[in-house]
Order: sequence, then C-alpha cells, then structure tokens
Amino acid sequence: MEKGKLIVLSGPSGTGKGTICRELLKTGEMDLSISMTTRQPRTGEKDGVHYYFVSREQFLKTVEEGGLLEHAEIYGNFYGTPRAAVLEKLDKGRDVILEIEMQGAVQVKKSYPDAVLIFILPPSLEVLRGRLTGRGTETEEQISARSSQALSEIHRIYDYDYSIVNDSLRDAVSDVKAIIRAEHLRVGAGSEALVRKYEEEE
Amino acid sequence: MEKGKLIVLSGPSGTGKGTICRELLKTGEMDLSISMTTRQPRTGEKDGVHYYFVSREQFLKTVEEGGLLEHAEIYGNFYGTPRAAVLEKLDKGRDVILEIEMQGAVQVKKSYPDAVLIFILPPSLEVLRGRLTGRGTETEEQISARSSQALSEIHRIYDYDYSIVNDSLRDAVSDVKAIIRAEHLRVGAGSEALVRKYEEEE
Repeated sequence: MEKGKLIVLSGPSGTGKGTICRELLKTGEMDLSISMTTRQPRTGEKDGVHYYFVSREQFLKTVEEGGLLEHAEIYGNFYGTPRAAVLEKLDKGRDVILEIEMQGAVQVKKSYPDAVLIFILPPSLEVLRGRLTGRGTETEEQISARSSQALSEIHRIYDYDYSIVNDSLRDAVSDVKAIIRAEHLRVGAGSEALVRKYEEEE
Repeated sequence: MEKGKLIVLSGPSGTGKGTICRELLKTGEMDLSISMTTRQPRTGEKDGVHYYFVSREQFLKTVEEGGLLEHAEIYGNFYGTPRAAVLEKLDKGRDVILEIEMQGAVQVKKSYPDAVLIFILPPSLEVLRGRLTGRGTETEEQISARSSQALSEIHRIYDYDYSIVNDSLRDAVSDVKAIIRAEHLRVGAGSEALVRKYEEEE
C-alpha cells in the first residue's frame, strides 16, 4: 500500500494556517496529528482528541526516548508531536496534517525527511496587521512587533518545500491539495512497487 | 513576473500522452512547444503551426549553435525542440508543454534542468496491448514487441520527476494540473521576488 504523506503547515502568526487546516480536515481525506502537552486541559478539551495530556515527567521521558517528531516549550508548557501515532497513520496510507510553529516545522523535517513543509504567507504585512488588529487581543505596539517578527520569519521561507500566499481561503486549500496530490505522484521510493506491478504481468 | 514552467510529457508508446496533452491545451492555460523537423509537410500542415519545416542544413546548423533543447532522428528525419521559442514563452510567464519521446525528455532535463518531467504509464501492459491492437496498424508480433519494449522503458521511471498512471483521462489531466500548480508553489529561485515584496512594504 502507498504510504501517506506528512504535511506540515507553518508560517508566521496570523496567516490563517489554522483555518486552512480545518478546511482540509473537512474533506475527510486526511488526518490531523494530535499533539502531546503538559498544560492543563481547558473546559471541553478531551484527552486523545484535542491533545494527549501528560505530566512533565511523562513528556520529558518521551523526548528522551525519541518519541516526538518535534517539541517546544511555550509559556512554560511543553508541546510535541508523538512520532508513533503519526507513523502509524502514514503506514496505513493516510495523509497526516500537522499545523505547528516554525521552529517545530524544521525539527520535523530533520526527524522525518519525507515530511512536506508548506509555508503559509499573508497577502501582505498590512493585511497581517489588519487581521491581528481584528482579533482585538493585542496593543498597537504588540501588533507592530508581530509584523516585524513576521517579516524576519518570512526570510525562513527557504527552510520550506512550498509556499502559499493565503489571500483566498478557497485557493489556499486547493493549493495545499494540489501539493499533496503532486507529492503522491513524485517518482521516488514508492515507484518500486509500481514498476514491480508491470514486471509481474509479463 | 513569475516564469512559466516547462512541462515534459513522455512515456512508452500507446499510453495516451498525446490525448492528455490535447486536453491540457484546451484549458488555454498553457502553450504547446512547436517542433522543428526536416520531414516534408503533410497535406494541411502549416509551417509555424504544426511544425517548423526546415532543410537538413538548417536543422544541423541549429543543432550546432545549441539552438535545440533536444533532437532525434526518426526514420531518417530530424525532429527537435527550438530553445528560443520555448524560453521566450517561459519568460512571458506561460507554461509550455512538450510531448516527446523518452530519449528527448532526458535531453531536455540536461539542457534545461528546471524542466518538469512527467512519465505517463499505462494502467497495465494488457491495457497497452489492447490499445495498440485497437489502432489496427500493427501485427500481433509487433504488438508483443512493443509491450516488451514498454516494460523495459518503464524502468526509466527514475529519470522522471513525476509519474501518472493513465487509467482515466480526466484524472490524468487533473494530475498534470496539480503537478504544474505545485511546481509553481515550490520554494526556489522565484521565492526571492516574493520575499522582496514584503521587505518593500516595511
């Protein structure tokens, strides 16, 4: 059976990668990777659905055992991507989508080089600032800092395989789908099975 | 302006790459590369539309000048892909499609490494034999020889970037489109212009 593809969506904050991710999952054609975290569950959050909630000790043990494709500490809590759960889905032929922070994306590529890294960009920094303003959770100064940070993050584009400018959700989703389809068509390790099929016919 | 992509469709004879090519051209989203040949025009064939018809001397002079992306001699006639015409279209941002024999495809990749090579495969050797029988132009022996040749050609898959099994024309056309879209989204030389756009905003 053809293996699934590990698709990593990342990019500066406020570029809409979460929305793209949710739209992709609606198609039912791919699975979401569930993160492991040491933070407390919020109301309504279920273990094994929204996150795998674990203790700090369990988390660090998993890291030591090489059980995470990537991990990071954010505001004192650990977050990571469990390797076994992802690999199991890929082996079953399911494409797995991972929406993570930029430092995590590069870690995934290192621990799983077949991962396909997609960088989501805002249509412009102005639009990005507009989106952050719309959220109403940050001061003008914070937004200005975020915009500068986004610009410096955009220079990390070369760590990625593909980039998508998210100026239309529909187009961005269809672009991700085109990338996934193309990646399945790439000649590589999976082509051996294809060639064998014709050989067995003769 | 973003450069166009050079898309090369190739594969064993009888896999339907010509039909896929014609369907793609119908979309108006890409241009066909017009070949140069030394063979005589057939009734209805127009110079500069179906082929560039040239003398043997002109053809060999063009080869010497490095004016062809690939060329081959078939049944005593020369055929080749004019470099300048293709590059001009690519520079204008048009995607160019090239449907050629397998030895030509590899030549194109050497002379234009950005070319995207797509290998078109039959659903099975049996289907391939059925298609060749349907043409009614070949003896049973010839068809059997063609099938063996196809199998040996299928082992050349690793010279290509992508492979598509043509068991449904619609799917095959949509697969080529997905590949072209994904290639436009690939991070590479073209990403510099994208990054500059954000820099200029600040």
